[in-house]
Amino acid sequence: MSVHALSQRLQARLQDRLGPQGVLLAAADKASYEASARHAGGHAQGVVRPATLEELSWCVRTLAEAGCAIVAQGAATGLVGAATPSAEGSQWVVSTQRLRDRLQLDPQHRSVTVSAGYRLSEIQRAAAEHGLTFALDLSADPSVGGMVATNTGGSRLIRWGGVRDNLLGAQAVLVHPPGQTVGSLRGLRKDNTGLDWAQLLSGSFGAFGIVARAVLRLHPVQKQIATALVAVESVPVAMALLESLEDRLGDFVSAFEGMSAHAMHAALSHLPGATRPFAGGCEYAVLIELTSAVPRDTGLDLDALLLQWLEGRLQERGVLDAVVDKPDRLWRIRHAISESVQALGQLVAFDVAVKRSSFAAFRAQALETVRATLPQAHVCDFGHLGDGGIHLNLVLPPGSDAQRIGLLRTRIYDLVVHTFGGSYSAEHGIGPYNQEYYERYTAPSTRALAGVLHEHVDPHRRLGNVRLD
Amino acid sequence: MSVHALSQRLQARLQDRLGPQGVLLAAADKASYEASARHAGGHAQGVVRPATLEELSWCVRTLAEAGCAIVAQGAATGLVGAATPSAEGSQWVVSTQRLRDRLQLDPQHRSVTVSAGYRLSEIQRAAAEHGLTFALDLSADPSVGGMVATNTGGSRLIRWGGVRDNLLGAQAVLVHPPGQTVGSLRGLRKDNTGLDWAQLLSGSFGAFGIVARAVLRLHPVQKQIATALVAVESVPVAMALLESLEDRLGDFVSAFEGMSAHAMHAALSHLPGATRPFAGGCEYAVLIELTSAVPRDTGLDLDALLLQWLEGRLQERGVLDAVVDKPDRLWRIRHAISESVQALGQLVAFDVAVKRSSFAAFRAQALETVRATLPQAHVCDFGHLGDGGIHLNLVLPPGSDAQRIGLLRTRIYDLVVHTFGGSYSAEHGIGPYNQEYYERYTAPSTRALAGVLHEHVDPHRRLGNVRLD
Repeated sequence: MSVHALSQRLQARLQDRLGPQGVLLAAADKASYEASARHAGGHAQGVVRPATLEELSWCVRTLAEAGCAIVAQGAATGLVGAATPSAEGSQWVVSTQRLRDRLQLDPQHRSVTVSAGYRLSEIQRAAAEHGLTFALDLSADPSVGGMVATNTGGSRLIRWGGVRDNLLGAQAVLVHPPGQTVGSLRGLRKDNTGLDWAQLLSGSFGAFGIVARAVLRLHPVQKQIATALVAVESVPVAMALLESLEDRLGDFVSAFEGMSAHAMHAALSHLPGATRPFAGGCEYAVLIELTSAVPRDTGLDLDALLLQWLEGRLQERGVLDAVVDKPDRLWRIRHAISESVQALGQLVAFDVAVKRSSFAAFRAQALETVRATLPQAHVCDFGHLGDGGIHLNLVLPPGSDAQRIGLLRTRIYDLVVHTFGGSYSAEHGIGPYNQEYYERYTAPSTRALAGVLHEHVDPHRRLGNVRLD
Repeated sequence: MSVHALSQRLQARLQDRLGPQGVLLAAADKASYEASARHAGGHAQGVVRPATLEELSWCVRTLAEAGCAIVAQGAATGLVGAATPSAEGSQWVVSTQRLRDRLQLDPQHRSVTVSAGYRLSEIQRAAAEHGLTFALDLSADPSVGGMVATNTGGSRLIRWGGVRDNLLGAQAVLVHPPGQTVGSLRGLRKDNTGLDWAQLLSGSFGAFGIVARAVLRLHPVQKQIATALVAVESVPVAMALLESLEDRLGDFVSAFEGMSAHAMHAALSHLPGATRPFAGGCEYAVLIELTSAVPRDTGLDLDALLLQWLEGRLQERGVLDAVVDKPDRLWRIRHAISESVQALGQLVAFDVAVKRSSFAAFRAQALETVRATLPQAHVCDFGHLGDGGIHLNLVLPPGSDAQRIGLLRTRIYDLVVHTFGGSYSAEHGIGPYNQEYYERYTAPSTRALAGVLHEHVDPHRRLGNVRLD
């Protein structure tokens, strides 16, 4: 049979089983699945949208047995292209968008068992009905499957960790043996009986299996929240504030976000009706958030505790000013940074992390490296200081030299990895857009281990856009 | 050369490199490394005690290349025999006791990088000097290497998780390639760049590699602690108390330990000078601990918050009595249970866990199973209710029928795994003493995955006492 006839037969089989909603072949229908949140999009052979675990397993088996290449996609909010089909158009997208056959909340166990297609915001709404919350806080609204595969971080990692730390179980479908379901949804808080597929799948960026369902740990909903914006003279002063805050009010710190003057300026210019929070200028500012599940009627008052702590700090050298305001008013500035920076010109983004103890020194050297390599770059960095994470976002004039940008990227990553023992992808994970750096920085023994796993679950290399070996 | 001559030559090589402190061959010297904390001991060919990472790597390479079987041992506090040499006497013990070449604390990053031979208590002392603490709380005093390999849990898992959750990195030595060092000590709080040896080694029970060094996350030291013992009519009442407590004071709950009347009675009879905490009897009691890193001079008063909450609860049905007392006085009772139960007769222990929402139902059915199978058993159970963990410890008259005990073990494990979707080893891990249950309950796909990993890091099966495939 000709390749064309084979392909037609496969399409017919898929349509027969999944229905018209389940298979997208027309260019217009495929378009949104071919786009990428930050980079250039790709092209897909077709898109399948299974609606149940059984359909997902059947799809993967059918495509794998037909020799097709597959890329899994959730809400396509990832920033490294791991869920975007490649440019050649040879891959099928397996979308988990319609995989919504399970959302089961266990209030007493404080967990939710949920299909890959649900969004973060939907988990939060379902949890809130029971006075519970899921720990992740992001500007984006990813799907459950995408979050697990990416091991998403976010702004509140300092308090509750990332997805891995809040993952009580996961089920995934493998391409080899084709369509096999692995993992468990038992969702225990304590279980020490060997390997755990959930831990392996989390942070494997779609390379080993397609996440179908997960069990997520929930926490009691936060009943108090207090926020302040503090202007400081320098990053070392900000780091000293973090230590002081943790020492006094450590139990309540749920975010400690640094923002450079440029980043804040970009956000304030971008937001309609926003006013400068500080009368004077400042080099750097920190958004501090305290939260607690303990209600105010117990006598615990986070606003008062934050004020009390701030008053002491304002006497200290390098602490310039502080504004206590409603959480949404302060977070609005912080959340506007990414978008506002993108609006200023060509965005070149670095998602890196070092030890907290190296944060200030790394940032200083990174700024120096930028100045030396691309003097026209405008640095609008912000960071999760409590985790040592920094989004070193640069704005360049449109049409800047691509080779020079590539050189800067390597210099910054070399600085973070080789000089500071840090990470060149703190939370965005690995995808086609940083695959070459994975190969540059990953230890041979770790790549060999990944190779063995690839070989076990995908010997024909049909799945995903990432090669971890 | 004869086997004897080969063996003599190996011994001479080891002694030459490691010195007299580094190689133990005499029966009297080996004895303490052949004992087991809970089960029958074994026999070792010899014991090597490397003092540096280089020596460890050299030892493992030398032994592996000589075709020797190896079992790694830390402080030998494990309860499933994973670090005890087998009975045949064919294994070499690689002790990490002298592996103390590194203890480096980073107060600003809140982490400690530490060699495998350090004990939990030593980590705590080093951390305390900087106002920090490591999250684990146990009756035993394991080594760092043992804790990582076991993925140790403990009484405060409800608040801070187990070892895996507090592990920022690890380095290990493989038997294949012989003596290769893998993993990383970068110790980042945020790093999403692929596979992590630390996560793989944690909870692999010495099967894949010998942990040499680890980076542990530290927390600010707890500056307040408030404890109470609450007598309840039944376990469902205890579970309802947990929900109420988390709803009101969730941020501070660091332990919620259940104790049956029998367990408490055993502890109180065992402790010199102990008096019954409650005037009346009770079926079940709960030890509640609240802790906070927030000092009292902020106005936060945990004692007052606990009292306030307790007063409300005492009006509720099924809550019989409550005692607020100093932490060490209450924990003393809880910590005495294991030892006191062991003193009463033959101990048969189960370390199991279910979802919190199944805890009460599981316990009731488990007690029924015990009564039906071994009516003479005296059940002295205690549990980490917040994690759904229960130590279902039984006391039997000496000389009880071993076959009947085996039958009970299978019945209890079948109940927990098959009926309740729970774990037959919640925190003790896997070793020779529950290997058969690993084989009974583990999914073929998980065993196949483990097989691939075994094959990669130990194709000749020289390392450890556990087979995860």
